Amino acid sequence: PFSIGIIQDHATPDIAANVTRTEGLIREAAKRGAQVICLKELFNAPYFCKSQQPDRFDLAEPIPGPTTARMQALAKELAVVLIVPLFERQAAGVYRNAAAVVDADGTLLGVYRKMHIPDDPLFNEKYYFTPGDAGPDARGFKVWKTRYATIGVLICWDQWYPEAARITSLLGADVLFYPTAIGWHPAERDEWGRAQVEAWQTAQRAHAIANGVFVASPNRVGHEDEPGTRGPTFFGHSFIFDPFGRPLAQAGEGEEILIARCDPALIETVRRN
Amino acid sequence: PFSIGIIQDHATPDIAANVTRTEGLIREAAKRGAQVICLKELFNAPYFCKSQQPDRFDLAEPIPGPTTARMQALAKELAVVLIVPLFERQAAGVYRNAAAVVDADGTLLGVYRKMHIPDDPLFNEKYYFTPGDAGPDARGFKVWKTRYATIGVLICWDQWYPEAARITSLLGADVLFYPTAIGWHPAERDEWGRAQVEAWQTAQRAHAIANGVFVASPNRVGHEDEPGTRGPTFFGHSFIFDPFGRPLAQAGEGEEILIARCDPALIETVRRN
Repeated sequence: PFSIGIIQDHATPDIAANVTRTEGLIREAAKRGAQVICLKELFNAPYFCKSQQPDRFDLAEPIPGPTTARMQALAKELAVVLIVPLFERQAAGVYRNAAAVVDADGTLLGVYRKMHIPDDPLFNEKYYFTPGDAGPDARGFKVWKTRYATIGVLICWDQWYPEAARITSLLGADVLFYPTAIGWHPAERDEWGRAQVEAWQTAQRAHAIANGVFVASPNRVGHEDEPGTRGPTFFGHSFIFDPFGRPLAQAGEGEEILIARCDPALIETVRRN
Repeated sequence: PFSIGIIQDHATPDIAANVTRTEGLIREAAKRGAQVICLKELFNAPYFCKSQQPDRFDLAEPIPGPTTARMQALAKELAVVLIVPLFERQAAGVYRNAAAVVDADGTLLGVYRKMHIPDDPLFNEKYYFTPGDAGPDARGFKVWKTRYATIGVLICWDQWYPEAARITSLLGADVLFYPTAIGWHPAERDEWGRAQVEAWQTAQRAHAIANGVFVASPNRVGHEDEPGTRGPTFFGHSFIFDPFGRPLAQAGEGEEILIARCDPALIETVRRN
């Protein structure tokens, strides 16, 4: 058995302050027993995809890079696995919505690059991100054998695609992590808001059921304004489901750390029976 | 827009009486406005897979055959589409868990043969059924353009496989029907019963969400004894979900007919936005 922690929080325009604050939350999660800790999508920045602004590409950094170096040191110090979702600059003009995976000894194990890129009002991701590669060299969907568990990482909109969950589970994941930034568009919230939260949770809960795997999704919270328009409100409601879809931990709409104990024997039981 | 009806009911060992009673329920569903009506899995018999008994192969019949002929006449009389799940004898030693699709003019449009065959205590389906074919001649997953809607039919255990829902939706289905016979094993009900109902509903609700399609699943109800052991209790809880996973109709654990109006414009809205 191993313990996982997911951190549901907000971000401000002050990147350095976001990283420092997140370090504190990671320390708290580790103190509460979490051995594998996952942050929200694009953890160290506001959700900058709200509009198309070329200067926002400056928020990207390489992996490995300064933020992953800092997280590698922290992982080693606390002896925890970290999933660090970042805006990655892979090359000039090639940017990714990525997540670095750091083992409990501080080793950078690799990077997952979001495969399914959405493009909605306030969510202009196709402007910013090249989709993850699934060619012969870049394997696309992946799992990592970390010190505590074999984990798969998918990012946000990937969560609507049962194929991604299926492939990653078949590769051997004990847990699927979905760092997320999902929110309500101000024009839709009244009519669709509740159904959007339920659809988001149900789709991923079904990945747990269909594959017999733990599923854990930390979402962003907070309202983020955007000059010239109304911004989205990220709705939280992060969760951890067991391999039969039973809730182990569920958050509200504020800052929260969720911790759950995961026993691989339950994966065996559910799949066998 | 079109209306669908699903019939949640029981069955007794008297096959002829089951067919006659079901005819009455179909008439009632049609009277209440249903244009496409789906019966539960293996509608005209007890759930005979509870144990392995060679004489029970006598329950099978060909398609077309006497029961489909009777249902074709009824479909024509009422001008309704009927989905008729039956134990099919395809050839000597080749038996199927099948569903005949009958158009509103009485034409037999075709047959779906369950692809995913379970084999659990009290559910000895691998003894009775050859899995549906997906070879070049038998197309496996299918849709049918009926008078009122393009429909896909999958059967019971198929519901745990997102692939089946995805393929059938991509073929053009407006609605996925899942005639079902799912119940509680007496030894499992206390510990797993509630989670089993939730997992069953969640998996299919997620098919609606992942594919933007209506999903309707009529389940069997009633306790069915089996000589020498305790039999299962079929748990009902049939449902109809809209293409965003919102419940349109939900049943309890007794006999019930669920009716819902389905607007293809909602499929367009959900998928586009």
